[in-house]
This record gives sequence, structure tokens and C-alpha cells, in this order.
Amino acid sequence: MTLVTSPARLLLALLCLAVTSGAAGAEEMRGTGDLGIVIERTAGSVQIIETSERTSLDRIEGLGDLSHASAVFSRDGRYAFVFGRDGGLSKLDLLTRRLVKRVLQAGNSIGGAISQDGTLIAVSNYEPGGVRIFDTETLAPVADIPAIYGSNGARSKVVGLVDAPGDRFVFSLYDAGEIWIADVSQPDKPAITKFADVGQQPYDGLITPDGRTYIAGLFGEDGLAMLDLWRPEAGVRRLLDGYGRGEEKLPVYKMPHLEGWARAGDRIFLPAVGRHELLVLNAVTFSEIGRIPVHGQPVFAVARPDGRQVWVNFAHPLNDTVQIIDTQSLEIVQALQPGKGVMHLEFTPRGENVWISVRDADRVDVYDTDSFERIGSIQADKPSGIFLTARANRIGL
Amino acid sequence: MTLVTSPARLLLALLCLAVTSGAAGAEEMRGTGDLGIVIERTAGSVQIIETSERTSLDRIEGLGDLSHASAVFSRDGRYAFVFGRDGGLSKLDLLTRRLVKRVLQAGNSIGGAISQDGTLIAVSNYEPGGVRIFDTETLAPVADIPAIYGSNGARSKVVGLVDAPGDRFVFSLYDAGEIWIADVSQPDKPAITKFADVGQQPYDGLITPDGRTYIAGLFGEDGLAMLDLWRPEAGVRRLLDGYGRGEEKLPVYKMPHLEGWARAGDRIFLPAVGRHELLVLNAVTFSEIGRIPVHGQPVFAVARPDGRQVWVNFAHPLNDTVQIIDTQSLEIVQALQPGKGVMHLEFTPRGENVWISVRDADRVDVYDTDSFERIGSIQADKPSGIFLTARANRIGL
Repeated sequence: MTLVTSPARLLLALLCLAVTSGAAGAEEMRGTGDLGIVIERTAGSVQIIETSERTSLDRIEGLGDLSHASAVFSRDGRYAFVFGRDGGLSKLDLLTRRLVKRVLQAGNSIGGAISQDGTLIAVSNYEPGGVRIFDTETLAPVADIPAIYGSNGARSKVVGLVDAPGDRFVFSLYDAGEIWIADVSQPDKPAITKFADVGQQPYDGLITPDGRTYIAGLFGEDGLAMLDLWRPEAGVRRLLDGYGRGEEKLPVYKMPHLEGWARAGDRIFLPAVGRHELLVLNAVTFSEIGRIPVHGQPVFAVARPDGRQVWVNFAHPLNDTVQIIDTQSLEIVQALQPGKGVMHLEFTPRGENVWISVRDADRVDVYDTDSFERIGSIQADKPSGIFLTARANRIGL
Repeated sequence: MTLVTSPARLLLALLCLAVTSGAAGAEEMRGTGDLGIVIERTAGSVQIIETSERTSLDRIEGLGDLSHASAVFSRDGRYAFVFGRDGGLSKLDLLTRRLVKRVLQAGNSIGGAISQDGTLIAVSNYEPGGVRIFDTETLAPVADIPAIYGSNGARSKVVGLVDAPGDRFVFSLYDAGEIWIADVSQPDKPAITKFADVGQQPYDGLITPDGRTYIAGLFGEDGLAMLDLWRPEAGVRRLLDGYGRGEEKLPVYKMPHLEGWARAGDRIFLPAVGRHELLVLNAVTFSEIGRIPVHGQPVFAVARPDGRQVWVNFAHPLNDTVQIIDTQSLEIVQALQPGKGVMHLEFTPRGENVWISVRDADRVDVYDTDSFERIGSIQADKPSGIFLTARANRIGL
């Protein structure tokens, strides 16, 4: 240091400091297991949240059209991949709190998935209809699966895209009435297995938490299409033929999300389409064993991670309420009125809290699931989906 | 920069670099979702591993007697809490890769748990017999639960300590033959519910992944003790009265870990005590529905996260082998010989890989669970338990 004059030393010490503290501020060292994001659908932004102190850490803007947006996470919990409605695929760094990269990979898309090993992102596209696969590191394109069906080269919208064990993605073709399995063991050469005539207009899909059973909801007719991925040779079979809009063609304000199925012990809880009811199914046979009258048309029915409670939100105009059902007594044990526009519910992974987005109140509230007390709240701009990094460790989320 | 002569500029640039890269080296910014630790039992050290590139990141030494050691993780995935045999409780920072704090909280202990909300660590002690509870932030003592039973003030060894939803810990008193539930909603004033006469010498316990059912294994007699935490008023009931050492009093080389129960769909796979068999139970009734002959006395039977396979290791002298059972056909579909002293198996959370510690070969091997190929290996000093941060997001782990 003796080589340097005193003012110069001071200046450079300050420069050092600036570099160091700059790095510390922008690149926080912290665990990622308690992080998550909240979609701000109108603003096209995302808030980064943490569930230990229940605060918002930052906002990332410029993600395009986030109506119906969803997200998955890298296996290390550091990066979120957000699927926008406009075909945008955005990679966010939750630690530096920056948009790492954004690609407009299609004209119109609906959701996506991350492969079991965390190396591939798949996006479900309406326009052009199909699935596109990207490298999680770089978002470089790896494979394209056009959803061509029939004999005239038409392309179908793709919906209900999920990951499955064994390096597979599973999805449904809305226009074709088909379910496809893509084996991406060789990422650039997906091996496709197709199941035709599964039913009219599959509009959404889910996979059970063990990754075994894929189920597509049908918009064009009653019932559900089910595929046992442990026995694909058995083909697609139909479930709950009475399930759907039914004979009366009820006005449906919002088709329930199939992600909003709740398994609790040996029972499954499922929003009835167009009715103020939850269906209760046997989890092994998928046959109906009961119905629970509820406040409105259910949108999401989500099981608390221990399966003791199911929390339900409702379609417009009754979307100010959340009801909580005891999965043993099948009784509604509590009702909450968080405010107008309850859009989504996300439990912390061990279930002690639930985060609820209240769109019209511009708030995300946090409730204790034992006492039903509101224990936290953050401001958010028209919040919709809430996604926590714990999803990185689950099959099919 | 013009104030400084060129050599001085160079020197200070290097100094800046040293400061910056020093900070980056010691305090790496990275996600914690793919981290874990490997216990080096003889050396009293722990290796920090990551499961994306399948490497060892660092070693932390000075943790005391780690025979039979286990670990839990903070809810953000940054900190590991290691329970040593000598009563040591160590808090490790997986990012700075340092021992944050170590307390000798008892003379002899066996395992522990972290509360549902992540604020409390509970340790199960042999000497003095009981449970001690600590603040996860500081490791400061919060509460002491001496395991006093009977009328003469005797203290029992405590085993089978697990966390349960609703701010509870559940554990068994080996000498007393009791199961206790501690409600720690008021952390410094645990509310204890006691169940007496559950059976002779409960030696280990488990809780089902939904946090509903607590089961203790009995050393002093055949059978298991089961408590339904959703209906504690129903009391403890006995299961599998034929389960245990049985009439023949077989030589038992190692009592199976009850953590090594595998639930796959509607079946449970359970090591038979002293026999070369796995028991298959109905997951709802817990009644036996079959037995599978295996290579040796099973120690751990662990389900791949999707439930399609169960991987089994064995007691001395047949501990060089791992067998893989298909949970549908109940057939052994593969056998591996990783080497002498296979001590533990840990699946990555979505099940694509499994990490296997091979004590006598001083290695931890990583296998692809689809191809059964060994795809990685790290050197380790007499490795035993392997624990990944994904456990932070599970009930009862």
C-alpha cells in the first residue's frame, strides 16, 4: 500500500467496498428451501417471497402476459421458470432476484413442466400446437414435438402437460382427443407413444403425486380419461362417466383446475363441474363414494400436506370465500372470507401455513392452518398463482 | 484511477479480487435444494454433497461420536442439525460450509427431529433419559422433558422421536414401555400426553409420511404399538402380534430401522426381524398380505419416491448387496453388489437417483434407478447415513 498516495488509497478502498457490498446486496447468500413466487397477472410481474418470516423480498418485472401463468423450479431451488400466456418462458434467479433470460417460444401457450432430472423444461403450446423442450441452463431449444393428428396435418392445442418418472412428459391434445407420452431419455429425439380416442376435448390433466396415474378432464363430454403409466399397454380407460357438465348443461363459470384434486388417505376430493359440490372418490377405484355441498362452484380443492383438511376456493361471483373440510368427518369445519377474488392457495410443504392470493384486494394473506388465524399479509398487484420452491422436490408439480 | 501509478493499480486490483473471490469461496451463493450431507462415522466428520453434478463440496470436522448419527434440516435448507451418539448437537451451515455451533446437550443420545414450523429442535436422550428442546437459531435450550415414569422417579431412555403436524413431537420410552406426545405450541411449556403399557421395550419408532400414524417397534416382545394421532383418544393398539423375534428366538444381527418402512401405493414393505424376508402389509389395515424371500436380514427397505421399487440392504455378514423389488410383481428385479458394508440408501427427492454408502470401501456411490447403472461415486471415510435437504419439506423426516 505504500506505493499509493493517501487519497488514491482511500478512493480504491471505497471502490473495493463498492464492489464487495454491491455483490452482497444483489447476490444474497441464503437457503432457497423457503422461497417462492407470486404471479402478478395484470402487471406482468412476479414477487419473490419467503415463508419463514412471511415477507416479500423483491419484484421482477417484464414477464409479459401472465394471465393463467404457472411456474416450476430448478432442482436446486434457485431458479423459477415462469410460463406466460403469450408463449413467453422466463427464467428467474431467486437469489440475485433478476430475470436471467426470457424467450418467446410460441404465440400462445399454457403451462409447462420440468423433467425428473431437472435438465429439461417442456412447454405446452396452443399456437403452434405442440410441445417445445428447452435446456434449463440456457433455455436453448432441444426438441420440438408438433401435435399433428389425423390425416390432413392439422395441429392440436396441447394441454395438461406434466412430468412423469423415467424422463417422461405426458400431455393431452385438445382438438385431437389424444394423450401422448414423450420419453426424453434422448432429449433431442423424444420417443412418442400416442393414445387416440380418449374422449372429446381434453381441457386439462393431472398426474397423481406418485407419478403413476395421468387423468385428463373432458370438456366435450362427461367423464374423465385415465392412463396408468405403470401399465400403458392397458390403454386409456374412462372414469366417472357422470362427471362433467351433465345432462342439464349447467352454466359453468370456470372449469375446475384438475391440479385442484386433493388426495387425503384413501379418499380423493374433486370439484364437481358447474355444481356447488365436491365429489369424494375412492382413491384406489376412483369410484364416487359421496358428495359434499359447498359454498359455490369449486375451483381448487387442495389437501393440506398431512391430508387432514381440504381447503376449497370458488368461482365468480362467490369467490370471496374459502371453506375448510375435515377429510374424516366430511364436514365444513371453518369458512374464511379473505376478500373478493380468491385465486389460488399454496400450502407450505409441511402444512403449517397456507398462502392465499386475494386478487381484488391486492393482497396475499397467510393463515395458520391449525388456528385459522391470519398471521401475515403482503401487498401484491392483482395476485394469482403462488408457487413455492418445495415443488422442485415433487413429482408432477 | 488516474491518481494511481500503474503497479499500485495492479496491486490494488489484485487486492480487490482477493477480497471478492475470498468472499465468494467461503460464502457461495447457490440454491440449497440439491444439497445434502454424508456422515463419516469414525472420523466424526460430515461431507457436504450436491446431487446435480453428484460431487462432494467440502468436509466439516469435529462433530464428535457420529456412530448412529442422523440429521434434520432447517426449513430454508441452509442448515443441517446433526445428532451425535455422544449427546452432541451440531449446527452446520451448508453454504459457508462451517460448523456454526455445537452443544453437548446430554451424555448419550439417539436422534432428533425439527418442529413443523422449523423453530425448534428436539433431541432424544438415553442419558439423562428424556427429550431436550432447543431454538434452531441459537441452539439455546428452550425446554426439558425428563422421561420420568413409575413411582420411584426413574428416568427412561427415549427412542423413536419424530415430529408431527400441529407443533408436536412424539417419542417412546424404552424402559417404561410408554409413548408420549409433546405439544410444543408454547415451546417453553410442553403439554405432555402419555400412553402407558404400550408393550415391552419400544426400541424405535416411525411416523407415516402424512404424519398421522406413529408406530413403535418392540424389543421385549413380539408385535408393534400403533397410535393414531388423529384419534389419540382411541389409545395405542397392537399390530402384527407375530412380528418380532418370535418363538424361535432367531439370532438378530441388527434390529431393522423402523424408518426403513416403505409405503408403495396401498402396500407397506417391512423388514422381518431376524429373517431373510420382507413382510408385505395392507397399508390401511396393517395386516400381513405376503412375504418376500430376500438375500439376508433386511436393515432398510426404502421405497423409490414413486413407489414402483423398494431397495433393500442387509445386516452383517451379507451387507455387500442391495436388492431391488418391483412393488407390483413382488419380484426381485435386480441385485447390486456395491461392496462390503452397505449402510444406508437415500433417494433424490423425485427418485431418478439413489445414493448408497459403502462403508468398508470408503465410497458413496450414485445409481440411476431406471438403468441400475452406477453413474457417480465420491470418496468418503467410513460413510454411514446420507441425508438430503429435501427432508426439510417432509413430515416426520
